[in-house]
Amino acid sequence: MREKDTFFMRQAIELAKISADELEVPVGAVIVCDGEIISVGRNKKELNKNVLCHAEIEAINSACTKLKNWRLCNCELFVTLEPCLMCTGAIINSRISRLIYGASDLKSGVCESSLGIFNSRLSTAIKVEKGILEDECSDILKNFFVKIRK
Amino acid sequence: MREKDTFFMRQAIELAKISADELEVPVGAVIVCDGEIISVGRNKKELNKNVLCHAEIEAINSACTKLKNWRLCNCELFVTLEPCLMCTGAIINSRISRLIYGASDLKSGVCESSLGIFNSRLSTAIKVEKGILEDECSDILKNFFVKIRK
Repeated sequence: MREKDTFFMRQAIELAKISADELEVPVGAVIVCDGEIISVGRNKKELNKNVLCHAEIEAINSACTKLKNWRLCNCELFVTLEPCLMCTGAIINSRISRLIYGASDLKSGVCESSLGIFNSRLSTAIKVEKGILEDECSDILKNFFVKIRK
Repeated sequence: MREKDTFFMRQAIELAKISADELEVPVGAVIVCDGEIISVGRNKKELNKNVLCHAEIEAINSACTKLKNWRLCNCELFVTLEPCLMCTGAIINSRISRLIYGASDLKSGVCESSLGIFNSRLSTAIKVEKGILEDECSDILKNFFVKIRK
């Protein structure tokens, strides 16, 4: 864990909280390049009625626009929840160099699952770290599901 | 293979040809709902300088907008090339019911690879068929790479 990791993950958590207020599954993401946040995203799937509107995809989309490049080679992505297959594929395709996530997703997450994507032939270079502010990231989701079940 | 499969794949091939003219890796996709094409996509990654601009993602994005729904339950996706990890994830997330692709992608395709995503816990319902107009789909790619190497 690097010194500023908790700072960036806190920004992702703030975005997740906005998603929760919008009655979306609360997930937030930020992309960092050369130590600065260059793009952010939050889950808007229900709001936009669009399956592509995961936090990571929104952040990657904005980062490509900002850098005018589909390659995000020197970028780090911070996300509150373990990415799904789609987002993991986008992260690998974009050549993001480091992925840092908070809470594990035992249902749809693929980083830790038996698919072992980050150890497969598809991805060789990316560094993956988990558990940064895990409790806070996880609590936002737990509280959200308790709230919507009421 | 259904009667109209070759018709829909030919539409995807026409889109791939446009990509080739634009010096993009030629891949085209169409989404069919109730026997009609509701959206199309072609690879625009270099043109748009955006890693998300694969043919399948463009088609899924347009289909969600058109149907005002992130669920594409009764939709079929025709694509000239075996989908990558990102697109496979988007296809699964969107609940597309049937995926039909032409050429295999031994480098980045994941449907046939050892990852075995379509046999995993992530995907239970989707039907996957390959090899529709395989030679035509494959030839577009081969001709493209011969051309750009010259």
